[in-house]
Amino acid sequence: MSQVKQLEVVKIKDDASAVVILDQTRLPDHEEYLTLTKEGEMWEAVKQLQVRGAPAIGVFAGYAMAVLAHYNEADSYEAFQKEFDRQADYLNTSRPTAVNLSWALKRMKKFVADHKENLSDLKQDLIAEAKRIDAENLEMNRKIAEYGVTLLHEGDGILTHCNAGYLACLGYGTATAPMYMAQEKGMNIHVYSDETRPLLQGARLTSYELYKAGIDVTSICDNMASIVMKQGKIQCVMVGCDRIAANGDFANKIGTSGVAILAKHYGIPFYTLGPSSTIDFNTPTGDDIHIEMRDPEEIGTMWYKEPMILPGIKKFNPSFDVTDHTLVTGIVTERGIVYPPFRENLKKLFNK
Amino acid sequence: MSQVKQLEVVKIKDDASAVVILDQTRLPDHEEYLTLTKEGEMWEAVKQLQVRGAPAIGVFAGYAMAVLAHYNEADSYEAFQKEFDRQADYLNTSRPTAVNLSWALKRMKKFVADHKENLSDLKQDLIAEAKRIDAENLEMNRKIAEYGVTLLHEGDGILTHCNAGYLACLGYGTATAPMYMAQEKGMNIHVYSDETRPLLQGARLTSYELYKAGIDVTSICDNMASIVMKQGKIQCVMVGCDRIAANGDFANKIGTSGVAILAKHYGIPFYTLGPSSTIDFNTPTGDDIHIEMRDPEEIGTMWYKEPMILPGIKKFNPSFDVTDHTLVTGIVTERGIVYPPFRENLKKLFNK
Repeated sequence: MSQVKQLEVVKIKDDASAVVILDQTRLPDHEEYLTLTKEGEMWEAVKQLQVRGAPAIGVFAGYAMAVLAHYNEADSYEAFQKEFDRQADYLNTSRPTAVNLSWALKRMKKFVADHKENLSDLKQDLIAEAKRIDAENLEMNRKIAEYGVTLLHEGDGILTHCNAGYLACLGYGTATAPMYMAQEKGMNIHVYSDETRPLLQGARLTSYELYKAGIDVTSICDNMASIVMKQGKIQCVMVGCDRIAANGDFANKIGTSGVAILAKHYGIPFYTLGPSSTIDFNTPTGDDIHIEMRDPEEIGTMWYKEPMILPGIKKFNPSFDVTDHTLVTGIVTERGIVYPPFRENLKKLFNK
Repeated sequence: MSQVKQLEVVKIKDDASAVVILDQTRLPDHEEYLTLTKEGEMWEAVKQLQVRGAPAIGVFAGYAMAVLAHYNEADSYEAFQKEFDRQADYLNTSRPTAVNLSWALKRMKKFVADHKENLSDLKQDLIAEAKRIDAENLEMNRKIAEYGVTLLHEGDGILTHCNAGYLACLGYGTATAPMYMAQEKGMNIHVYSDETRPLLQGARLTSYELYKAGIDVTSICDNMASIVMKQGKIQCVMVGCDRIAANGDFANKIGTSGVAILAKHYGIPFYTLGPSSTIDFNTPTGDDIHIEMRDPEEIGTMWYKEPMILPGIKKFNPSFDVTDHTLVTGIVTERGIVYPPFRENLKKLFNK
C-alpha cells in the first residue's frame, strides 16, 4: 500500500512498549494518536470506538496482547499464561459482539498455549504473531482490491455508504479497495460518499480518508443518492458488509438497502465487498439476521449544539438493514467475485 | 381547525399594530414569538426564514402590509399609495423567488389601487383583505384534508418527508392535512417523519408539530425509510410539492424522489398534496424544472458543535429533486384527487 497516502490506524512500537492508535472519535476535526500501554486504556479504546471496524479491532487486539505480554512480569510460563489469558478475557468484554475481537484474542491465547518456551522468546514470537494477523488482513484486502478494480472503468462515478475503508479495515479497506487500487493504476474515478446518518461514518471517515489519499470525493446527504444517480454521476455502487447470508442477502449499515433499491431502479450495478469470513453459511437468509437497535436519542441530539428533535418524540434507530440478494449484482471477496445465483455460487467458491 | 392543537404561526394584532410570528429558526428547542412593527424587521423575518413555507409567507406578507398601512402617516391617498407600494416592493426583495410572497404583495397593492377611499376606511379594509388571504388558504388546506383523508385507513402508518404541515402552510397544512383530519375523526394513525437532511425540517418541524398536536409520530433518519417500509410499518406515503409539471412530474425537497422509488419497490401508494397553484401547466415535464443549489458547507457544518466533514472536501447540496410521475399514485389538490394519466386528468380537472 506504499502508493496510497494513509494515516496509520493501528501500530505497535518497535520495542512492543505500546500500541498506538488514531483516535477515530476525534475525526475529522482532530488527528490525534493515543499511545496505550495498560489493559484499562486498551479496553476503553475499543469500548469508546476510538478504534473501530471489525478488521481494525482484530489487528488492535493482537498488538494489544503483544504489548501486555511485554509488560508481563511473571517468571514462569504458567504464571505468564495465567496473566495473559486473564488480560485477553478482560479485553474481550469491551465489545462482546465484535467477532474479530474475540477471534484475535483466542488466536493469541492459543499461540501461548502452543508455545511453551522461554518467556523472552515467547514475547518476541507473540509480536510476530500479531504482525501476521495484521499482514493476513492486508493481503485479504489487497485481493479484494484486485478483483474489485476489474469492475471499474476510466471516469466512473462510484457511490459508497458508511465506512468500509482503511480506517475500519486497514490497508485498502474493503468497499474502498477497488478505489485505492484504481488510483494506483492512475485511473480517473469520482467517489460520492453518503454521509450515513446518524453516526456520520461516511461524512467523518470515508470522505476524510479518500480526500487525504488524493481521491476525488464528494460528500452528499443520504437522501441525495437518488439525484446523483438520476443525473448520471454514478456508474457503480460499492459498499461493505457485516454479514452475508447463504442466499446472498446481507446486513450492512442502515440505509444500504435503500441505496440498493435506487441502484436497481436506475439500472446501476451494485456490489458488496468483504472478506469471506463475512459469509455465514449457517444463516439461510437475511430474515435470520438480528438487527441491532441503538439508543434512539442518538438521532435527535448527537453532534448537535442543541436537540434537533424534542426529547419526548419517539425515534427509531436501527443500526443495520438487510439488502435482498435480488438487488445485488455481485459479491466481491478475496477468493473472487460471486454472481447470482448466490446460494449455488457461494457454495461452489467456498466448497461448502 | 379548532379541534387540532397548534401553535399560532402568523397573526395580526387586533388593532393592526403588529404582526406576530413564531420564530421557526428557534424550533424545536425554543418556542419564541416575534412582534414585528417595522418594515426592516419584516424583511429580515422572511430573509432569515423566521417565517417560512410558501403559504405562510403569503399570509405573512398580507398582514405585514396591513400593519405598515396602520403606521402609514400620509395624509392623502396618493401619498399613502406611494409609500405603501414602496414598502411592498421592498419586502418583495427579501426572497425574490418566493412566488407566494410576490403574489400576496401584488394583491395588496392592487387592493389599494382599486380602493380610492378615505384612508381610515382603506386601512380597515386592508386588514380585512389580509384576513381573506389567510382564510382562503385555510379553506384550501381544509379541502385537501377532506380529499386526502379518504385515502387513509384505520391503523395506517404514513411516511412523510420534509415539512408541509401547518408551520409552513397554516391550518391543516398540505401533506399533513389528511393526518390532522384523521385525528379529528378519531382515526388511529401512525406517522413516520423523515428528518430531511441537511436542513432537518422533518426532525425540527414536522415531528414537532404532529407531536404537539397529539398525533403518534416517530422520527427517523432519511436512510431508514427503506427498513420501515420493509417491516410493514408504512401503508402510504404523503409529501408536499413545490412545483408540479403538466405531466405530473413534481419538484419537492431533496430526497423525495428516493422515497418514491422505495415506495414503488415495496408496493406502497405514494401521494403528493398541494394547492392547485402548485401546478404549472407551462412546465411540460420535470426536466424543465430548475433545481436550486444551496451552500455546500451546510452539509458539513450546520447545527454541529464542530465540522463533520473537512472544509476542503467537495459537497453537493441540491435543495430539491424531481419525482417522476410514473412513481406517483395520485396528486391531491383542493379540487380533488388526480390519478394517471396525469397530463390528461390534470387538464380535465382544471379546464386547461
